Amino acid sequence: MNSATTLVAGIGELVTNDPAHGGPLGILRDAALVIDGDRVAWTGPASAAPDADQRVDLAGRAVLPGFVDSHSHLVFAGDRAEEFAARMTGQPYSAGGIRTTVAATRAATDEELTANVARLVTEMRRQGTTTVEIKSGYGLSVIDEARSLAVARQFTDETTFLGAHVVPEGTDATSYVDLVTGPMLDAAAPHASWIDAFCETGAFDADQARTVLEAGQAAGLRGRLHANQLGPGPGVQLAAELGLTAVDHCTYLTGADVDALRDSGTIATLLPGVEFSTRHPYPDARQLIDAGVAVAIASDCNPGSCYTSSMPLCIALAVREMRMSPAEAVRAATAGGAAALDRDDVGSLTPGARADLVVLDAPSHVHLAYRPGVPLVAGVWLGGQPLS
Amino acid sequence: MNSATTLVAGIGELVTNDPAHGGPLGILRDAALVIDGDRVAWTGPASAAPDADQRVDLAGRAVLPGFVDSHSHLVFAGDRAEEFAARMTGQPYSAGGIRTTVAATRAATDEELTANVARLVTEMRRQGTTTVEIKSGYGLSVIDEARSLAVARQFTDETTFLGAHVVPEGTDATSYVDLVTGPMLDAAAPHASWIDAFCETGAFDADQARTVLEAGQAAGLRGRLHANQLGPGPGVQLAAELGLTAVDHCTYLTGADVDALRDSGTIATLLPGVEFSTRHPYPDARQLIDAGVAVAIASDCNPGSCYTSSMPLCIALAVREMRMSPAEAVRAATAGGAAALDRDDVGSLTPGARADLVVLDAPSHVHLAYRPGVPLVAGVWLGGQPLS
Repeated sequence: MNSATTLVAGIGELVTNDPAHGGPLGILRDAALVIDGDRVAWTGPASAAPDADQRVDLAGRAVLPGFVDSHSHLVFAGDRAEEFAARMTGQPYSAGGIRTTVAATRAATDEELTANVARLVTEMRRQGTTTVEIKSGYGLSVIDEARSLAVARQFTDETTFLGAHVVPEGTDATSYVDLVTGPMLDAAAPHASWIDAFCETGAFDADQARTVLEAGQAAGLRGRLHANQLGPGPGVQLAAELGLTAVDHCTYLTGADVDALRDSGTIATLLPGVEFSTRHPYPDARQLIDAGVAVAIASDCNPGSCYTSSMPLCIALAVREMRMSPAEAVRAATAGGAAALDRDDVGSLTPGARADLVVLDAPSHVHLAYRPGVPLVAGVWLGGQPLS
Repeated sequence: MNSATTLVAGIGELVTNDPAHGGPLGILRDAALVIDGDRVAWTGPASAAPDADQRVDLAGRAVLPGFVDSHSHLVFAGDRAEEFAARMTGQPYSAGGIRTTVAATRAATDEELTANVARLVTEMRRQGTTTVEIKSGYGLSVIDEARSLAVARQFTDETTFLGAHVVPEGTDATSYVDLVTGPMLDAAAPHASWIDAFCETGAFDADQARTVLEAGQAAGLRGRLHANQLGPGPGVQLAAELGLTAVDHCTYLTGADVDALRDSGTIATLLPGVEFSTRHPYPDARQLIDAGVAVAIASDCNPGSCYTSSMPLCIALAVREMRMSPAEAVRAATAGGAAALDRDDVGSLTPGARADLVVLDAPSHVHLAYRPGVPLVAGVWLGGQPLS
């Protein structure tokens, strides 16, 4: 191919996520990386780097795979800053607050929704997120779910139909599930890759969630699920039984839930920004990891339970609050997120992978947890191109 | 005066910290602000704004006083990422780790120390900090304390002599206090505004801290103190008795400590980034505020116990973990920090104050806690000039 090659030199620490290089992160020190077009063509020691058409020197900075944020709700209008402030003075979080955002989202134009997603995707990219999943779920009508997904599709292939987010006002769960699995699914499926539901008290029970997921799978969508966020429940075991790719939240788990995840290979996606922003207890990441469950970290960026778009903060919280090592947390936010989206082209920096890179203004991935809140992302490369 | 005036218009929410405007933050909505030279000349409703030589429109963004970070340790070399990673897997924090940084700092050139401070001050400014206090305390010899302060003085007038940080290896506390209060103070005082000590088990006891503080005060320095960080102790009451401007950490307080602070007017400076980074319990901010104690929030940016430079993160932690309201936290990070440095020209945006402004890419100060980790600082004005 005729594309220009770029040698990225002077990498103090290169996180490849390649097990061949050892440890959870496959770290190479004093390394270099060659980009050819939109792909990684070579990685190795700086001293053995091949020639390339152009050369960039990073002066000892750390390079990581771009973050893969496998759980976000970016298609919405308005915010819920007042609800947040009230919650911080003692009001509990409940799923019902979602309806506030539904009203604002339905009232917004397509252009307003698109501008809001663009703003948040730009914000995410500046913080190192190079792959993002975006859900619907604030439309909850045929037209509003379909247009939410059409808006999301402008920004990512990883779009998820979450018509079964909550039961909207003015209907009952049974009628609404019929709508979600019928006309709404028909309208949504052309714009979506994934089917999702919120299996939780106050949202949908296990039978309803199963009905939604199976209908989505029959329509060619792959399955993921929100479950066990606000209390124990049947969702995690349902996800394992259905062989879903990922089940998200996993805050309240029994030993049987953990066993089911381990046996099914379903990825447990932890969203510590939610617990930070709702004061719920954090998921027990150690129990999951020590049992051999594959874990991802994602932001859950949404205006209600967690309005952070910062994967670096989620990594810092995973270390501080869930006792993951910095290496485990970084892996969960990169390779873990990729696994949670069934992707093998992102989340690692091995020859053939997409050249999605995060450059830190720091010598090591450890600094993402060691320096919480500090905007350490000094550069982002997306498909081989540096973001301006 | 002949300086150009600038009208900053389109301010959705202007935090003035002026009690005349009500609430803890003196908020004006749909506001404007006029800068004349390095000072605020006027604030008020946008509809009543006067003419000015130039005009900037902020399109509804929130404007706050620049953050006043009254506690940092930026003069050092090296980092302690490995100690951090070990601590996150269960090693407790102890004051003794300071000695690792002392060795690296002594070995560094003045140019290296200056470059490190410049890097961190730049990082702080990008995150909205417009006034920063910088301590010595990693030199612990006459020459290294004096040069640390000379380096710090290039960046701020708020320099603090913290020779009494820990007792360095190779000496005993009594001999070292003699050194600190004798030749070291003589060498340090020309470069310092403040005297400080670390009154804590493993550092200095109350008698030693008193000796250091009184010697510093006799040399014309004003007093502040590190106390009650790692356990209960006599430091807070010593600070109140000596009428110090501020006492910092205040993690372990008795009711008598709180009463002493209320009666003395000494500012309690809380450093929640430390608790985040050491897993110690957070200070009881509510007890202090409800008792009428004046509270500041600062970063304590240092390579050991807390390597964040982010006042926005400290605000988010104050809300999440110390149950301060977003308004209380923002006030503590602006007007509170100013009080902790005895400054009446910063920390508020009233006519006559320094035109140190933070512009948020958000409609409200609440978003600093509502959107944790997100780099929301869209612009910073320092003495009337926008930072590039």
